[in-house]
Amino acid sequence: MKRRSFLSHASLALGAGVTATACSQGPSATGTAKSDEPVRHWKMVTSWPLNFPGLGVGANTLAEMITKLSGGRIVVKVYGGGELVPAFEVFDAVSRGTAELGHSASYYWKGKAPAAQFFAAVPFGMNAQEANGWLYYGGGLELWRELYAPFNLVPFPAGNTEVQMGGWFNKEINSVADLAGLKMRIPGLGGEVLRRAGGTPVSLPGAELFTALQSGTIDATEWVGPYNDLAFGLHKAARYYYYPGWHEPGPTLELMVNKELYEGLPEDLQQIVAVAAQAANLDMASAYVANNYSKLQSLINEHDVQLRRFPNDVMAKLQEISSEVVAEIAETDELSGRIYRSYTEFLAGVSEWHELSERAYYQVRSGDGQSC
Amino acid sequence: MKRRSFLSHASLALGAGVTATACSQGPSATGTAKSDEPVRHWKMVTSWPLNFPGLGVGANTLAEMITKLSGGRIVVKVYGGGELVPAFEVFDAVSRGTAELGHSASYYWKGKAPAAQFFAAVPFGMNAQEANGWLYYGGGLELWRELYAPFNLVPFPAGNTEVQMGGWFNKEINSVADLAGLKMRIPGLGGEVLRRAGGTPVSLPGAELFTALQSGTIDATEWVGPYNDLAFGLHKAARYYYYPGWHEPGPTLELMVNKELYEGLPEDLQQIVAVAAQAANLDMASAYVANNYSKLQSLINEHDVQLRRFPNDVMAKLQEISSEVVAEIAETDELSGRIYRSYTEFLAGVSEWHELSERAYYQVRSGDGQSC
Repeated sequence: MKRRSFLSHASLALGAGVTATACSQGPSATGTAKSDEPVRHWKMVTSWPLNFPGLGVGANTLAEMITKLSGGRIVVKVYGGGELVPAFEVFDAVSRGTAELGHSASYYWKGKAPAAQFFAAVPFGMNAQEANGWLYYGGGLELWRELYAPFNLVPFPAGNTEVQMGGWFNKEINSVADLAGLKMRIPGLGGEVLRRAGGTPVSLPGAELFTALQSGTIDATEWVGPYNDLAFGLHKAARYYYYPGWHEPGPTLELMVNKELYEGLPEDLQQIVAVAAQAANLDMASAYVANNYSKLQSLINEHDVQLRRFPNDVMAKLQEISSEVVAEIAETDELSGRIYRSYTEFLAGVSEWHELSERAYYQVRSGDGQSC
Repeated sequence: MKRRSFLSHASLALGAGVTATACSQGPSATGTAKSDEPVRHWKMVTSWPLNFPGLGVGANTLAEMITKLSGGRIVVKVYGGGELVPAFEVFDAVSRGTAELGHSASYYWKGKAPAAQFFAAVPFGMNAQEANGWLYYGGGLELWRELYAPFNLVPFPAGNTEVQMGGWFNKEINSVADLAGLKMRIPGLGGEVLRRAGGTPVSLPGAELFTALQSGTIDATEWVGPYNDLAFGLHKAARYYYYPGWHEPGPTLELMVNKELYEGLPEDLQQIVAVAAQAANLDMASAYVANNYSKLQSLINEHDVQLRRFPNDVMAKLQEISSEVVAEIAETDELSGRIYRSYTEFLAGVSEWHELSERAYYQVRSGDGQSC
């Protein structure tokens, strides 16, 4: 599906849009740059391949928004993982000011602060709309800022993939016993849950998944969902496509800004960064909605993918283990305990509400509303 | 729950924030206003009471974003419904330029263009995340712009309430027969569906609902959800609170901009309006997530509200009628036909995907994943 964001709409409405670089020449171009204010050239390092569907494109969109909203007073250039710094050094690079901005996912930084994982994805936790409710209106973002402040970083929610798929498997999972010895690429909290259920979690970069799965080095892998999984060709290396993605029910992607730099910005540029991140958050989620459904149809209709739903007792067991794994993070330190309590209290309340609203609505619309 | 948006965060981070008015004095204030560019004082007329929870507060947030992002080059003042123009004349006021901006919901303009209703809410149609997928990445926004262009308006999605509640009833609805003669306040397409099911839909402004329900002038009313319904005290006038809100599964609120004005703006100000609307869209939806759940708990625990779920056969009948009512709009003219086909095709595809992802996830998380 072709990308059509507000930005391209606005450019279309204008005919030939002025490029960000052309805008950055001073007041004579668009009238927004202050004549004695030098143009800020910012680097955005990311944990994704440049232009990668969804995640990388979302980083590009955010960079473009900041550049355009500021009338070229800030010009942002995006770097793929490994171009300027390795994918998993984005946090450190922005912290020390090697790059001004970073686009990543906070669960990669569990080695710095285990509680960072609450701001990306929690197994059996909040989906995208719930996470946004918590972050923007439930105290989540304040806690995230508090967690990142000692690292000289200011975080912003800046994207979401929606509920992911459970992954690609070469054998069927019919009971908890089928997880014993299962060698699966699944990072983070989900991986720890699998380990305690008897499996063997493996960490591998996305680019190596296809080969590892096809060669039998691993028995299964999760990645994202139809939009990204089709791009990697995972359907050619495994037979069964399981749902739902219990381990990542709507991961938030993050924008990190060097804190010293952010606090030195004029207020309007601070607002531009914050509001662009919020718009980019919804923009990426919307791209996943549209592309996941069209790619799912392609996987089913053109590639004969076998969809499988995880059995109920397997889900129940993994949910039980997840509660333990997540609760352990609360023991790390005082702040981790506060983050855990804030997250779990919001989750309990919003789950009750979404049972009546979102979930009941899906049931009614599908026509099997009260069959059970 | 206290409102905590990015804007207030940024102000907190800065200590005392510079007010929009102070920013609007020219380059010496924040360095963003061009010295020969006069400050634009814009009026935003709305269909809501000023500062009304969710809807009115969402309009304020958007106005504040535009003012702050532009460094005060645009200063937006919000007017409640009836202050400058009546609530239901927002469309005309912005069209003719009496006001520069309008904040409303497109289903109010079905008298101008019946297909406008697709851009707000469709019974048994898309929820918030699906509507955003269609609007931003499924061709929906292009169609909306085409529909509004002859009225000299540019529309932007600018908020969402999530799935609403089904409404407040003074008798139980146990079968389709219980709808016969039911006098219910329910506007738009939902009202037409009720009429064909044997009921009597009534149109009343929100402010009159409590009295009409308490006095028995009406038997039932829908409004929004716990956040807004509690504010109106509807639980004191009716016994049963029904779910889910089949008639409004995630209405999009709209920003309308006078088209001639919008097209004459410098590109960076166009981007500021577009991106602020997209951020405000997510911001309002997030406020509803957080506040609906906390107010639902208050309704149940403090006010002993009786929750009721619509019976399955009632939902099935209303869904059947809804399909007919919605399809009739396609007959209006060529553009309406294209809008109808675009909407229904996206809905069919995204429903299939969300059955596997969002809905299956809700089921798994609640622990009754495959009991049926």
